[in-house]
Amino acid sequence: MTSSNNSEFELIKRYFTQLGAQRTDLLLGVGDDCALVTVEPDYCLAISTDLLVEGVHFFADTPAHDLGHKALAVNLSDLAAMGATPAWFTLALTLPSINSVWLQAFSQGLEQLAVQFNVQLIGGDLARGPLNIAIGVHGFVPKGQALLRSGLQVGDKIFVTGQLGGAAYALSRLLVKQAVPPNLLQKLHCPWPRVREGQALLGIAHAAIDISDGLAGDLAHMLNQSGVGACLQAAALPIPDPIKQALGDEAAIELALTGGDDYELCFAVKPSKLPQLHALALDCCCIGTVEPGLGLRLQYQDGSVNTVISQAYQHFSGESDIDK
Amino acid sequence: MTSSNNSEFELIKRYFTQLGAQRTDLLLGVGDDCALVTVEPDYCLAISTDLLVEGVHFFADTPAHDLGHKALAVNLSDLAAMGATPAWFTLALTLPSINSVWLQAFSQGLEQLAVQFNVQLIGGDLARGPLNIAIGVHGFVPKGQALLRSGLQVGDKIFVTGQLGGAAYALSRLLVKQAVPPNLLQKLHCPWPRVREGQALLGIAHAAIDISDGLAGDLAHMLNQSGVGACLQAAALPIPDPIKQALGDEAAIELALTGGDDYELCFAVKPSKLPQLHALALDCCCIGTVEPGLGLRLQYQDGSVNTVISQAYQHFSGESDIDK
Repeated sequence: MTSSNNSEFELIKRYFTQLGAQRTDLLLGVGDDCALVTVEPDYCLAISTDLLVEGVHFFADTPAHDLGHKALAVNLSDLAAMGATPAWFTLALTLPSINSVWLQAFSQGLEQLAVQFNVQLIGGDLARGPLNIAIGVHGFVPKGQALLRSGLQVGDKIFVTGQLGGAAYALSRLLVKQAVPPNLLQKLHCPWPRVREGQALLGIAHAAIDISDGLAGDLAHMLNQSGVGACLQAAALPIPDPIKQALGDEAAIELALTGGDDYELCFAVKPSKLPQLHALALDCCCIGTVEPGLGLRLQYQDGSVNTVISQAYQHFSGESDIDK
Repeated sequence: MTSSNNSEFELIKRYFTQLGAQRTDLLLGVGDDCALVTVEPDYCLAISTDLLVEGVHFFADTPAHDLGHKALAVNLSDLAAMGATPAWFTLALTLPSINSVWLQAFSQGLEQLAVQFNVQLIGGDLARGPLNIAIGVHGFVPKGQALLRSGLQVGDKIFVTGQLGGAAYALSRLLVKQAVPPNLLQKLHCPWPRVREGQALLGIAHAAIDISDGLAGDLAHMLNQSGVGACLQAAALPIPDPIKQALGDEAAIELALTGGDDYELCFAVKPSKLPQLHALALDCCCIGTVEPGLGLRLQYQDGSVNTVISQAYQHFSGESDIDK
């Protein structure tokens, strides 16, 4: 039931036949029934897929360039959370109409990020319909070294990269038509996947997750899968100053714990590996410790402790992803 | 901006955590940031993605079981066209609402076909929005043996599996609310991917494509990519008798050439390999020959020849896929 015309096919060919890095492990790219790739024997392949749907994950007026960037970034973030090195991606795109200006900007957003991370478009599909972007990513990780969610051990120090709450704060401001500081708008529209940090953590961290649905919910996944609990230090949560100033400490902490779309990494390191971590000089900070008692607790500077999450993930979260 | 509640997460977990075959080459499945898989050293990996969008690829009232089947089948058909052995798939699903009856039927449609072809669901994403199903498939093919579109050589005999026009005929009847013979409705709603035929053809055929957009258009891709032409025998086109009886020979031939959604394979075999092909006793028939002059021609029983397609694909077709 699909229909299109000649110029559409030409546009698609122009924007999507050759996109991203030029990889030598790609034997056959866009233009056949499948792509053909090779995987080195000492590596396993990490595979993930993430959707962006208009009205659910982004506003209808989001610039096409940012959408291209973000659609790939949120997928690369999943590779980052395994410590994997990105390689290839596929694109299944549903568009209400063919608009060459939109397609050019969208493909440029994809292209710029793809080149940054040496990842190549290897295939896809396009249909008419409400705007919907499904990307599948593939990357390499040395066998036995991937950073799993289930690897937490009592005594581990818990870290996050970057800062928390920026994307959620930007979204909350956009929803009420208020101005947003440019660096926080950037966090929402053009998140930078922590691929290099994830790769650097191989052999140092032994568990990681990307914080796409908020620190508390995503960390709870790890706690749940590892059968442990954790205590976080409220004062240690890295929150941008403009958010603290605008919301006050308590609401800023709440946002840092629950706000989604940050695409930072949360990871765990044994105390014995801390010197190696510090030597990396990554943009990260320690926010707490893994403990034997189940659940997630938050300790304030006055010594008081609040329970954030009392038990396993599925009893409190708004998660809807089947791969998270 | 995603939102959902606890019971939704439970439903998703119930239907999609464990779906399809249980494969030993899957190191880590649904439930982490990525799946982890291994690829044998003598094989390359074939990767493809195909969309099904409501109102574009299927009617809103199509049974969920059939949609689950078809969404996976059209992807497996791309693997079949390379001669690849299916291994894993991902699912990016956008649904207007969470409906456990629909989800159960949909996942059963996926499950039944996945088990048939020893393929396992390894990850995915779910969001609210207009119904949109994007599957990504992965399969193995021995290095250097994949069936490419570009492999046609002058003198090759051209074959198709099964019969042509059934799905397009069923669709044409449904569009005017007419009854459809059950076997033709099956072709439209539950196509059977020619995976086993594709695998059997490795080393015998040297080019193949899946006919998802109609024989003429898809064969033209092969001719174009191989720099050759072809002549088909009108009388040799395998068309179901009920279609010939309903439409007459001329319109039935037109439908067999242009009707989409058949998901049969079109492949080419050197004359010297014909004995090996016949020994396989596949459900296929010879429909023509590769010739030096560009374009696609159709020869009738009286000896007259019509040009079906005079040059490269993009000048006549309604194709909109970027991987085809």
